[in-house]
Amino acid sequence: MIDMRPVGYVIGLLLCVLGLTMAGPLVADIAVGNGHWPVFLESATLCLAVGVLLSLACQGGMGGGGLTLRQTFLLTTLVWIVLPLFGSIPFMLGAPEADLTDALFEAMSGITTTGSTVFTGLQDLPAGIQLWRGILQWLGGIGIIVMAMVFLPELKVAGMQVFRSEAFETMGKILPRAAEIASGIAVFYVGLTVLCAICYILSGMDTFSATVHAMTTLSTGGFANTDASFGAYGGAAHYVGTLFMILAALPFVRYIQLARGQAEPLWRDSQVRAFLLTILVCALLIGASLASYSHGFTEVAFRESLFNVVSIMSGTGYASADYMQWGPFPVAMFFFIGLIGGCAGSTACSVKIFRYQILFACIGAQIRKIHAPHGVFTPRYEGRPITRDALSSVMAFFVVFIVGIGIVSVLLTLTGLDAVTAVTGAATALANVGPGLGEHIGPAGNFAGLNDPAKWILTLSMMIGRLEMLVVLVVVTRRFWQG
Amino acid sequence: MIDMRPVGYVIGLLLCVLGLTMAGPLVADIAVGNGHWPVFLESATLCLAVGVLLSLACQGGMGGGGLTLRQTFLLTTLVWIVLPLFGSIPFMLGAPEADLTDALFEAMSGITTTGSTVFTGLQDLPAGIQLWRGILQWLGGIGIIVMAMVFLPELKVAGMQVFRSEAFETMGKILPRAAEIASGIAVFYVGLTVLCAICYILSGMDTFSATVHAMTTLSTGGFANTDASFGAYGGAAHYVGTLFMILAALPFVRYIQLARGQAEPLWRDSQVRAFLLTILVCALLIGASLASYSHGFTEVAFRESLFNVVSIMSGTGYASADYMQWGPFPVAMFFFIGLIGGCAGSTACSVKIFRYQILFACIGAQIRKIHAPHGVFTPRYEGRPITRDALSSVMAFFVVFIVGIGIVSVLLTLTGLDAVTAVTGAATALANVGPGLGEHIGPAGNFAGLNDPAKWILTLSMMIGRLEMLVVLVVVTRRFWQG
Ligand SMILES: [K+]
Ligand SMILES: [K+]
Repeated sequence: MIDMRPVGYVIGLLLCVLGLTMAGPLVADIAVGNGHWPVFLESATLCLAVGVLLSLACQGGMGGGGLTLRQTFLLTTLVWIVLPLFGSIPFMLGAPEADLTDALFEAMSGITTTGSTVFTGLQDLPAGIQLWRGILQWLGGIGIIVMAMVFLPELKVAGMQVFRSEAFETMGKILPRAAEIASGIAVFYVGLTVLCAICYILSGMDTFSATVHAMTTLSTGGFANTDASFGAYGGAAHYVGTLFMILAALPFVRYIQLARGQAEPLWRDSQVRAFLLTILVCALLIGASLASYSHGFTEVAFRESLFNVVSIMSGTGYASADYMQWGPFPVAMFFFIGLIGGCAGSTACSVKIFRYQILFACIGAQIRKIHAPHGVFTPRYEGRPITRDALSSVMAFFVVFIVGIGIVSVLLTLTGLDAVTAVTGAATALANVGPGLGEHIGPAGNFAGLNDPAKWILTLSMMIGRLEMLVVLVVVTRRFWQG
Repeated sequence: MIDMRPVGYVIGLLLCVLGLTMAGPLVADIAVGNGHWPVFLESATLCLAVGVLLSLACQGGMGGGGLTLRQTFLLTTLVWIVLPLFGSIPFMLGAPEADLTDALFEAMSGITTTGSTVFTGLQDLPAGIQLWRGILQWLGGIGIIVMAMVFLPELKVAGMQVFRSEAFETMGKILPRAAEIASGIAVFYVGLTVLCAICYILSGMDTFSATVHAMTTLSTGGFANTDASFGAYGGAAHYVGTLFMILAALPFVRYIQLARGQAEPLWRDSQVRAFLLTILVCALLIGASLASYSHGFTEVAFRESLFNVVSIMSGTGYASADYMQWGPFPVAMFFFIGLIGGCAGSTACSVKIFRYQILFACIGAQIRKIHAPHGVFTPRYEGRPITRDALSSVMAFFVVFIVGIGIVSVLLTLTGLDAVTAVTGAATALANVGPGLGEHIGPAGNFAGLNDPAKWILTLSMMIGRLEMLVVLVVVTRRFWQG
């Protein structure tokens, strides 16, 4: 059997952190004076009580701070089940008075930074709940960076091993390293969030909305605190949002290097170049289409196009306009852009640029091999040869992702959803993007109208997608639990 | 430079064959007495003249019957350009009076056995043209089997090298071998077609329709000679169609073995087992959905479900009913079933069962490797280890196929098609299935209403799909034409 104590210990600590952050909404509700603060007091007490008891009970198992491979898998998976569960408590106790289905959907959508919402009338929710939705995404965001930089490379899943630095080889060091990286990253994550909030305020947003949006921008989460999302704000806010969504989707380790005076790694990172180039090309194409479709070649067409392309490709999912009305070309583009994604080591999601780069490098080598059957062609990523292991691993991710979209789509149609809602809902959940297509879950829509089975399927899909598909696939095998 | 003479020689011979088969429609038109026969006399004369001249002019280049790797690539690609061009002549000269766009679309759709049609009022076309559409598919069908058994394994593209038998190693033997295999296959292909026609006649079809449908069944092509497709026929014809579509989608080499008294290879072939099992499961699921949706658990629900599942999964594309009306679950299922496909070495198309088996075997090995990082796990297909080369090659096919659907979809939306028509049109063309989804190109629809640019994009997609994506990708590289 797997010794669950180290897993319980870490989860207990994380629950304590979750409970402590509930002080934010508590203070907000007191400050506004809406009388809603007891919800957060109760929720925080529950979180802290369970967290403290759990970590105390499990403390004995942490001999030397080491985690086995299985414990790491289990920890990674359970974190994305337990934290959403506890994060959903304020939604059940408080103002939205949601049932478990809706509350868990919203909390999972928050922590996985998917950003799909089942709540309507967001602007009428108490300040504390509005803030809590932002905090869930913001915590999820830094959790994702740490997971991508420390845990996934060690677990060698989904091709993340290409980001493994050889200096830290043993699993025993994983927790100290996680703490070290998290604190290094946190400086930039907090710093950029504050900077983003200031820029939003300068662009005309009120301080509270700026704070919430800064948190959901840096986490590429996409929760807004009005139903209109970014449609409610002007051009300046759109440019600020565009800039910080791009910054949030770049690899955070490059910022640490940048602060040490090394600008080169950032500009030479092929992920970054491909990401920026793809955004530029897509924004120009969609902008041109939008211009010919309606506005003419105006600043508005360029801005709307850029904002929404960045929003979808970084996986944020803010909408500044109902792009379902822009004609079939942008609609199809937005669907496929959502399947590209940002850079690994950021808060962005979906397939991610580097996996396409690895797959295309291998296809290139494959074609050269066909030309010269006896030649040896080594596909490379960032100058280093792509190992067979990494390639199989990326391929496994891609196939499971595509087949996963198929399976989830079909399951969703069984609950009665129409085909477009089902397919784009499956894709947006597994890719953690947020909006789908069609009138129901499109940029102007909302997930509130879906039936309960569909919400549960999507909740599970968001979790599986955030765990890069394969972590879950490993944990659910019988072999994992044996021997 | 590449010596084009051997390529020209083979294409010349194939044009002669195409010209000679035009005798069929010529005789049919004379027999019916519709006065349409001169169209086929002119077309046949043109084909034969060009064919004879081309092969005579190029005869000198065939020293010893050998083909280099490049010549083989070029031949494989050019066959699927030149034959559709000449095959489209009767459509331009004759009754449908089609322009080049429509005529080439129809001929490409025929020879690639896609089965999408741009003609309406099929039942009013002259008998010769109806027969010619069947003959195009029937010739395409045997061409596909020979290509899959001889050319693609030697070209080592798209994972087809797993079907390479080591006895024939040198490219020099490729033409004699192709002729030998073609004649071996032809016996069964002709035999099954005749048997199928007899069964159709017994099920109540008139002799002429039975002949045409037998040809488009065995080639999994799906052209019908009425707009109603199989909706015009009764239950017996549906069961006959189901049986022969399944037979057409199994590997033909197994029939040769069967005739030699070896039944085991057929039953032990994991492709065959997975194919039949998938059909059964999908037919039961869709049948149950259809039963609960409308008819109740009747024979009709089972039959309609089975017929259409087999039709889509084998890539035939006959429709016995407008399944767009069956609710979202069957609609989504049919879309994804079309992306599975039949067995390699048959006339079936799409991704094909064996590629999923190889990908899943590698994902399984990947997961076992995660459990035991120092273990060695060799993924196997049919008991033999999957080489790195074969795996990369299957992966390359899968990625190019998925990305190809994305690119073609987006291009189609640029021509003004709606998103559903664009995405399912791209998929159905690249997978050579035939019908898409939606009101325009769905099972009850027709490609006639599309604009010309969309038709050209789809014509090209059908060709690229039939050449397993990668053959075209190799031929269009600059390296191919250099040195
Ligand atoms: K998001
Ligand atoms: K077909």
